[in-house]
Amino acid sequence: MKALVYVTLKKTVLDPQGATIARALQGMGHPEIASVRQGKFFEIEIEGMDAAQARPMLERIAEDVLSNPVIEEFRVELLQD
Amino acid sequence: MKALVYVTLKKTVLDPQGATIARALQGMGHPEIASVRQGKFFEIEIEGMDAAQARPMLERIAEDVLSNPVIEEFRVELLQD
Repeated sequence: MKALVYVTLKKTVLDPQGATIARALQGMGHPEIASVRQGKFFEIEIEGMDAAQARPMLERIAEDVLSNPVIEEFRVELLQD
Repeated sequence: MKALVYVTLKKTVLDPQGATIARALQGMGHPEIASVRQGKFFEIEIEGMDAAQARPMLERIAEDVLSNPVIEEFRVELLQD
């Protein structure tokens, strides 16, 4: 089974990297770009588990390892195959 | 309008960071984790453009600015609102 974990900065946390990209794009002739926020994601291949077992494990992994819960939030998506 | 641009390493390119995360998780008692690949994404807010105009602009931006086409591939997703 394949899973995707998306990690983004919380809405209330400044994203200077995203802001820099937005300004750069505006300066390159794209005034339509109002804002950019950057995040990361993880494609995880899981073996020998069904979705009911995988989801709680992934939520734990996302919270403990893949994200910093002080400033980031995450979303787990399971892809059946 | 909001858009998401996902950037991942091409399948043929090694992802040492993802491999390290996978090994760490296996060592932390998650042998079910077969592999991890890391990617990044950009949440982009666009003003004064419809989807027909935004998509080609975003494809150009993704190719020229947000990704390295030698080793990375990207996917553009438009969210209507």
